[in-house]
Amino acid sequence: MKKIGIVMGSDSDLPVIQKCADTLKEFGVPFEVHIYSAHRTPSEARDFACSARENGFGAIIAAAGMAAHLAGAIAANTTLPVIGIPCKGVNLDGIDALLSTVQMPSGIPVATVAIGGGANAALLAIQILAVEDAALAEKLTQKRANDAKKVLEKNAAVFQEFQK
Amino acid sequence: MKKIGIVMGSDSDLPVIQKCADTLKEFGVPFEVHIYSAHRTPSEARDFACSARENGFGAIIAAAGMAAHLAGAIAANTTLPVIGIPCKGVNLDGIDALLSTVQMPSGIPVATVAIGGGANAALLAIQILAVEDAALAEKLTQKRANDAKKVLEKNAAVFQEFQK
Amino acid sequence: MKKIGIVMGSDSDLPVIQKCADTLKEFGVPFEVHIYSAHRTPSEARDFACSARENGFGAIIAAAGMAAHLAGAIAANTTLPVIGIPCKGVNLDGIDALLSTVQMPSGIPVATVAIGGGANAALLAIQILAVEDAALAEKLTQKRANDAKKVLEKNAAVFQEFQK
Amino acid sequence: MKKIGIVMGSDSDLPVIQKCADTLKEFGVPFEVHIYSAHRTPSEARDFACSARENGFGAIIAAAGMAAHLAGAIAANTTLPVIGIPCKGVNLDGIDALLSTVQMPSGIPVATVAIGGGANAALLAIQILAVEDAALAEKLTQKRANDAKKVLEKNAAVFQEFQK
Amino acid sequence: MKKIGIVMGSDSDLPVIQKCADTLKEFGVPFEVHIYSAHRTPSEARDFACSARENGFGAIIAAAGMAAHLAGAIAANTTLPVIGIPCKGVNLDGIDALLSTVQMPSGIPVATVAIGGGANAALLAIQILAVEDAALAEKLTQKRANDAKKVLEKNAAVFQEFQK
Amino acid sequence: MKKIGIVMGSDSDLPVIQKCADTLKEFGVPFEVHIYSAHRTPSEARDFACSARENGFGAIIAAAGMAAHLAGAIAANTTLPVIGIPCKGVNLDGIDALLSTVQMPSGIPVATVAIGGGANAALLAIQILAVEDAALAEKLTQKRANDAKKVLEKNAAVFQEFQK
Amino acid sequence: MKKIGIVMGSDSDLPVIQKCADTLKEFGVPFEVHIYSAHRTPSEARDFACSARENGFGAIIAAAGMAAHLAGAIAANTTLPVIGIPCKGVNLDGIDALLSTVQMPSGIPVATVAIGGGANAALLAIQILAVEDAALAEKLTQKRANDAKKVLEKNAAVFQEFQK
Amino acid sequence: MKKIGIVMGSDSDLPVIQKCADTLKEFGVPFEVHIYSAHRTPSEARDFACSARENGFGAIIAAAGMAAHLAGAIAANTTLPVIGIPCKGVNLDGIDALLSTVQMPSGIPVATVAIGGGANAALLAIQILAVEDAALAEKLTQKRANDAKKVLEKNAAVFQEFQK
Repeated sequence: MKKIGIVMGSDSDLPVIQKCADTLKEFGVPFEVHIYSAHRTPSEARDFACSARENGFGAIIAAAGMAAHLAGAIAANTTLPVIGIPCKGVNLDGIDALLSTVQMPSGIPVATVAIGGGANAALLAIQILAVEDAALAEKLTQKRANDAKKVLEKNAAVFQEFQK
Repeated sequence: MKKIGIVMGSDSDLPVIQKCADTLKEFGVPFEVHIYSAHRTPSEARDFACSARENGFGAIIAAAGMAAHLAGAIAANTTLPVIGIPCKGVNLDGIDALLSTVQMPSGIPVATVAIGGGANAALLAIQILAVEDAALAEKLTQKRANDAKKVLEKNAAVFQEFQK
Repeated sequence: MKKIGIVMGSDSDLPVIQKCADTLKEFGVPFEVHIYSAHRTPSEARDFACSARENGFGAIIAAAGMAAHLAGAIAANTTLPVIGIPCKGVNLDGIDALLSTVQMPSGIPVATVAIGGGANAALLAIQILAVEDAALAEKLTQKRANDAKKVLEKNAAVFQEFQK
Repeated sequence: MKKIGIVMGSDSDLPVIQKCADTLKEFGVPFEVHIYSAHRTPSEARDFACSARENGFGAIIAAAGMAAHLAGAIAANTTLPVIGIPCKGVNLDGIDALLSTVQMPSGIPVATVAIGGGANAALLAIQILAVEDAALAEKLTQKRANDAKKVLEKNAAVFQEFQK
Repeated sequence: MKKIGIVMGSDSDLPVIQKCADTLKEFGVPFEVHIYSAHRTPSEARDFACSARENGFGAIIAAAGMAAHLAGAIAANTTLPVIGIPCKGVNLDGIDALLSTVQMPSGIPVATVAIGGGANAALLAIQILAVEDAALAEKLTQKRANDAKKVLEKNAAVFQEFQK
Repeated sequence: MKKIGIVMGSDSDLPVIQKCADTLKEFGVPFEVHIYSAHRTPSEARDFACSARENGFGAIIAAAGMAAHLAGAIAANTTLPVIGIPCKGVNLDGIDALLSTVQMPSGIPVATVAIGGGANAALLAIQILAVEDAALAEKLTQKRANDAKKVLEKNAAVFQEFQK
Repeated sequence: MKKIGIVMGSDSDLPVIQKCADTLKEFGVPFEVHIYSAHRTPSEARDFACSARENGFGAIIAAAGMAAHLAGAIAANTTLPVIGIPCKGVNLDGIDALLSTVQMPSGIPVATVAIGGGANAALLAIQILAVEDAALAEKLTQKRANDAKKVLEKNAAVFQEFQK
Repeated sequence: MKKIGIVMGSDSDLPVIQKCADTLKEFGVPFEVHIYSAHRTPSEARDFACSARENGFGAIIAAAGMAAHLAGAIAANTTLPVIGIPCKGVNLDGIDALLSTVQMPSGIPVATVAIGGGANAALLAIQILAVEDAALAEKLTQKRANDAKKVLEKNAAVFQEFQK
């Protein structure tokens, strides 16, 4: 199976990346985690992107805050799908990172998920791998069923609680 | 090759979808275009999503404006990658559609591109198919080279112009 | 008397729903509380909406955060009045949920109240039932009078306090 | 059948109100249209609201722009359901009117629809009357079916167009 | 000397009003404090405004949050200058209150100060009274000089501190 | 009677100032119009402010766009009431000018009116002069009555129109 | 004298760059204009930045729209001062470009000017060169005087006009 | 070497200024710190700016919050490069200060850095001095290398951690 590359712009993004890694582990999808800054280590970020396909990656997840250029900088150097996670910084609640990640110019898309959406970034990466992997697709279907079951159990409990 | 499903919430989104379709044609990727509204035709939107994988689709692109629920409604009913294009409505310049598309809850990701980003949605869908399709990946690399060449030609022209 | 249906997208919305339930109890209006997610349990949310009128509901209150599609998804499947409560998520202070709830396309309205406005959602539901129920309308008038009385008592106290 | 009261804050809101009136006519629901400003004619706005229930109104629609207080001012003086339409002003694309209309304090709800949402305001008013009026509810169901049919016809056309 | 009327929409606005009252006391300007809600006690708010000039008020300060209609509702019922203080609510950091207060339609101005700007509202009221009151104007000049002196003392201290 | 000083930061603000001047003329209030930029002519702006009270001004209106510092720069150099009009620039619809004008720090208030609110700035200035001028106050009351009459005439017309 | 490098991300930014170039010409400051996209030609953008200091540049101006990464990408590869001009795209009025340009992480500053601020970017570059160039500083002082003179001439004209 | 002037509008901005001062010390660049308010001490702020060049300053850093006029007020009175740091106030997360600082009118640029960007303001000032100072430029290059090394060390650690 192809690997998922996870890159964060700073170690302050670790809590978001942890959710990402946990989800990939849950699905048994191999991955690598890196810290590369689009601004402080531009060469390493570029090199990682340029060689990602030949190194066996199937998609790259990039998380960054503020003027979040990381996902775009990676996307500019690979034709693999790049998933961007906008991270909340000290101010502005992540709206700066969201716009910096999603508003990419024509030619270089970044598949953007919600602010801080680590788990969804992983799920999207898995969905991409699952396009040609029926077993993985089946696991996704299973997780959906489990998620639904949890909601319905909570529904039953809350329904009862308010019936009293 | 798997098909790309393109769904728009209203025919007012056609200009955005046209760029999408043009890009897919340019790459020779098969696709189908539909108008299904998450609100006016919820069953048809759901049915399309539920049967998309078995019907040979590899990814779905959904474009909608305002409280843009279409991509999310599709994503809730398939485990294929769903790409959301937020469209500008009469007011608010598309920020409502952007937030309605990207801020999905954990469990159901939507790969969101820029407001009105029809071409990028298509490119992202192609990148997804290209993960396991080396010929398609090569075409993406080629397009990147062409795009770069066009920029550099414009650069040469503008550089000369301002040297005068 | 018709029942009010209350649906929340996640149990994290419970504090908002509690205010809602308390207000309905205060007016002796029957209600049911459910957790149905527009994205994780789309079928159950739809089924609830489709059968709501025949099941004796007079209006439905739906609370959700982020890309808050729940109220719209319910409204797409019933012609009962649907009241949407945008809930604050981890980021963006609820502005994402507000726009996702209120900016509905022509044909499918959602009666949106303030971010986190659980009590007002309940009052709006009661006002809807009270259109044809004079006793309930009288209770609303009474509550208004009580609310006003409380404000005026506080006014008297604060006026005195600052006269010193 | 109860009447719907339509109040606009200024005649610049007429295009929005026209969509509102057209929809009510289509459903055969009686209505009255007024121009009352919360700021320039506060007494008349209040008097209209105070006597609305006894004058046979079942719901009131209020449209206003900028610091859009009209719906709130009406709501403060009646326990009938009040539907607010935020209207776009010269600047800010209606976000000022949206927040001024929807962010009502606890006790006095305004059922807010989308910016410029004249048709939806009318549909919401009809849904409110239809809670106890099966014939009107049936008309709403019919309109939904017609709206869906139109979408599906457009879908068929666009699908064919792109198959070429 | 004319009195300043201070009205708040809810006792949650008291911290803002306290700064207002403290500043007026500092200048020896008489004032009255009230809690009147534009929505819960519309008659009392209106009556206060209508009789304010004849009751010896020279300006009215109104503080409110969310869909902050109070200042506008007062301004609609008096030709005295009305100063609006937008107050921060539970969400949105006061931007809803700011737009609801400042974006008044032509004909009914509200003199809006910063979000939570209690002291400045008082100073503005004093400036208004000081237009025809040389002694009060002199006190304002004095306060400016004192404020400047405090800044310059801090400047001297911080300059020294960083010279080390 | 004291004069009103009107200062604009650039001649692009003239349309807003024209409404301001027209309103003052309508009330027979004397005024002077100036173009002084807080940034391009800081000395002249300051000198105007410093000498405004002794030169017979009763209030100053300042209109500016973008990082609209003019009203604040004037307010920093006079204790007269300063009324700020935020003007729309090429981008951002005036929200930059609104925040730059209204969010003044404690000690130096600016009485801010709506974006582009030239007429209201003039009315506020007149209200300030009218605190001690009963004849002017009477004119304000008269204008309010005229404005209300115009609304009610339009109301009668629109009511009739929709009765057909 | 050192040269100023001007880089735009797309030829749609030419109108902004023209103002930039005109200002530099007016001051006799040498410059070069390039089109390099941070995303479509990342290598060329990087190479330009890496060699800028040795190639005789004293500062670089970078203009881009949407997720405007150009200035940041340049700044990551040179220690010369980089001036960013956020450009308005099709949607959002340039707020996306502003946040993407200004919100740079610690370590890599971008000197950001107003949205579309071509002339100011040039003036800032000239101010930087003028730190050690007294003749250039003198020209800046002269331009300030000319700008002020123009404002004061307009002031005289408008003052007269409104005196009539 | 020329000095850097640091001016803050209020001592509440000290934490931001501390990062600024620390960075300048690290590079051995001389600086002076002042508290001057554009509104409370306009003369002192102006005098500081007017004499800054002759007093040996090479650039000025100005930090302020809310309607942050300080950087603009300084820039209006000197042709030295002025670097603005928007500071977060009690509300609005610094977006008011950002727009008040960056949206300067043509003629008077302010080099704006990120909200709260004290370290980057210092680095920008150093970059400006380093245009003609090769030793300082070398120190900047060194710091970049150190910053990159730290990122790569963290990368190695996090990579290992997730390999387990």
